[in-house]
Amino acid sequence: MALIVQKFGGTSVGSTERIGQVADKIARFKASGDDLVVVVSAMSGETNRLIGLAKEISGDTPPDPRELDLMLATGEQVSIALLVMALKRRGVAAVAYNGSQVPIITDSSHGKARILHIEDRKLRAELSAGKVIVVAGFQGVDKDGQITTLGRGGSDTTAVALAAALKADECQIYTDVDGVYTTDPRVVPKAQRLDSITFEEMLEMASQGSKVLQIRSVEFAGKYRVPLRVLHSFIDGPGTLITLDEDDNMEQPIISGIAFNRDEAKLTLSGVPDTPGVAFHILGPVSAANIEVDMIVQNISHDGSTDFTFTVHRNDFQAARGILQQVSNELNAREVVGTTDIAKVSIVGVGMRSHAGVASRMFEALARENINIQMISTSEIKVSVVIEEKYLELAVRALHTAFELDKPDETSSAD
Amino acid sequence: MALIVQKFGGTSVGSTERIGQVADKIARFKASGDDLVVVVSAMSGETNRLIGLAKEISGDTPPDPRELDLMLATGEQVSIALLVMALKRRGVAAVAYNGSQVPIITDSSHGKARILHIEDRKLRAELSAGKVIVVAGFQGVDKDGQITTLGRGGSDTTAVALAAALKADECQIYTDVDGVYTTDPRVVPKAQRLDSITFEEMLEMASQGSKVLQIRSVEFAGKYRVPLRVLHSFIDGPGTLITLDEDDNMEQPIISGIAFNRDEAKLTLSGVPDTPGVAFHILGPVSAANIEVDMIVQNISHDGSTDFTFTVHRNDFQAARGILQQVSNELNAREVVGTTDIAKVSIVGVGMRSHAGVASRMFEALARENINIQMISTSEIKVSVVIEEKYLELAVRALHTAFELDKPDETSSAD
Repeated sequence: MALIVQKFGGTSVGSTERIGQVADKIARFKASGDDLVVVVSAMSGETNRLIGLAKEISGDTPPDPRELDLMLATGEQVSIALLVMALKRRGVAAVAYNGSQVPIITDSSHGKARILHIEDRKLRAELSAGKVIVVAGFQGVDKDGQITTLGRGGSDTTAVALAAALKADECQIYTDVDGVYTTDPRVVPKAQRLDSITFEEMLEMASQGSKVLQIRSVEFAGKYRVPLRVLHSFIDGPGTLITLDEDDNMEQPIISGIAFNRDEAKLTLSGVPDTPGVAFHILGPVSAANIEVDMIVQNISHDGSTDFTFTVHRNDFQAARGILQQVSNELNAREVVGTTDIAKVSIVGVGMRSHAGVASRMFEALARENINIQMISTSEIKVSVVIEEKYLELAVRALHTAFELDKPDETSSAD
Repeated sequence: MALIVQKFGGTSVGSTERIGQVADKIARFKASGDDLVVVVSAMSGETNRLIGLAKEISGDTPPDPRELDLMLATGEQVSIALLVMALKRRGVAAVAYNGSQVPIITDSSHGKARILHIEDRKLRAELSAGKVIVVAGFQGVDKDGQITTLGRGGSDTTAVALAAALKADECQIYTDVDGVYTTDPRVVPKAQRLDSITFEEMLEMASQGSKVLQIRSVEFAGKYRVPLRVLHSFIDGPGTLITLDEDDNMEQPIISGIAFNRDEAKLTLSGVPDTPGVAFHILGPVSAANIEVDMIVQNISHDGSTDFTFTVHRNDFQAARGILQQVSNELNAREVVGTTDIAKVSIVGVGMRSHAGVASRMFEALARENINIQMISTSEIKVSVVIEEKYLELAVRALHTAFELDKPDETSSAD
């Protein structure tokens, strides 16, 4: 008898009819003998409805994060209650827990809280009693009893954290796609579903804009070695297993997928003195403002001064630019320039560790399409480039073909 | 500097615009120097929306009370968050608390929980820090951390319980009426607003169907000697003070008001043996089913058998009838009869203690209108009768005139 943690997102519980379908699915799983902990998000649209109310009330002033969390947490509280009602109607013993009832202890960073600890005592007792436990995703409680939220997509993180705390056999993330693809099928119709992908690859794919899983949930899953599977909520299929072990498949391709992201903006502080401590002087205030920085590039200096470039989420662009202007004055830098007109494209794969020339093959494919590369950043299993946004689709398709990820052509493979 | 507890109902916080108006009002109060604890209900319509979802999910099976409470409690959690955002926007330091954060400890009777204890430590610290505290009405938490609700109208109870726990100087209930009237002005246009009314009278008025305040809140207020005032949310005025002391006004009228109620149903078990323990045998199972019984009448017996009649809420009529049928078989009674086609009319006033003949004056007024009395029940400050429902308005108007409660005629008082 296995212990499975399942997570259903907002679309999967977007109406009472869909909640009924999810309940049917859970009832079938439960009948097969597994122990189940189910994490659900708010009904789709609900979080936006609540944010809309908060904006109406708050006008130009941003709503206080503490009250916003208190309000947003109600979305999941409603859906866990409804799902348990649906399960009970189907004769399945079930019980609902919100974040503070478990409790899922987080830090106090409202709107983007981090899970510190999950108390498993009550949950284990409920499992022993044969109950399906339905837990509110996305939320927790800090040590002072304040209700916190983990930020958008936080329900995935809740599911993985619960799987880790309970040492579950598998954490299944149900979504509106049937697995992880070599790239976004809307951009490249020949994209293929992967049967498996390693945590490191998934992490890079997620961080590079693949929206299937929230990055923190993959980090968590890798760290606590929780086997993670992505599946479609309403279409049966094997999904994609995110594995611990990259050696499962001897025929591992060099590159597993092409990720991309148009949510970023680029900022450069040019003419900064090339002295120790400068990087910290620049990024310290950005980080203090809770702005996450993605790519950072600093090239060699000329005449004792250099240019410092980094990317942030587009939502943080104006805030980051303001901070940078301040830093520029302090450092006597030349100027601050920035643009939101960029896209990032990455090739990801553990296979590239043992294969030389992967980066140059990438650059060659882009050059062949006359796409200029603005920034380059590399890790052991990933090469990312920043290009002008309008070339994004072209670049992704070119790379997908160059790294032999295209689905075999239906007509020509009929031999 | 006084400590005031204020309660705003669902209509008063029914839209973000109204929440803004309530915030303006609170800001003015706070500016005048008083300490404020504000209790709010869910936005009007929200509780019904949630119940609707629960019904869609549950179909014919009633939703589990535990999950229903978990879900319904979200309504107030949203409105406290919104009100605090509105207050902060107006520069008023404020903080939101849901029932389990205070905590407001209740028993575990989901859907109709009773408050056992309010922990005041955190609230006192917030008041000392100069903050307006906004507390979710209607909800609490039991000793196992389960979220409970107090039942419809429970926000009044929350307000009074908080006022008692904090020893507040006054508990102000803001509503859509500007005070307590001698009777419902929709039925009797000449009904008058009372400047004050005693707790006992208010309790009888409330229990007899006056919807201004929830009966439990009045009980609480009387028990803990919390001065209670009913006021209009958006129209300034003195409202009605519910006083501890009936001797404030030497010119106390005999009758303070006429209350009525069409929510009840009547049940009779006829031909039951007139032996000790029978009343308990009949009402024990009814009470065990959590059905509240209002009037109970048992007259003298004939030939060792008697008829036992009581009234319940119309919603409980079918359930009570089923229970009574069972009891009837056990007791070998003659039959169970019942009807929902009744109304109850009561005259209420502490003045009747010292005035003989009040009941007969009531019966005379009803006889003059040819209204038949089906049941009679009396207390020290109240006489209630059950009549056929269609005569309700006629009876109320006749009694209002008979006890000299009518507003002076505008034209004839112009001398």
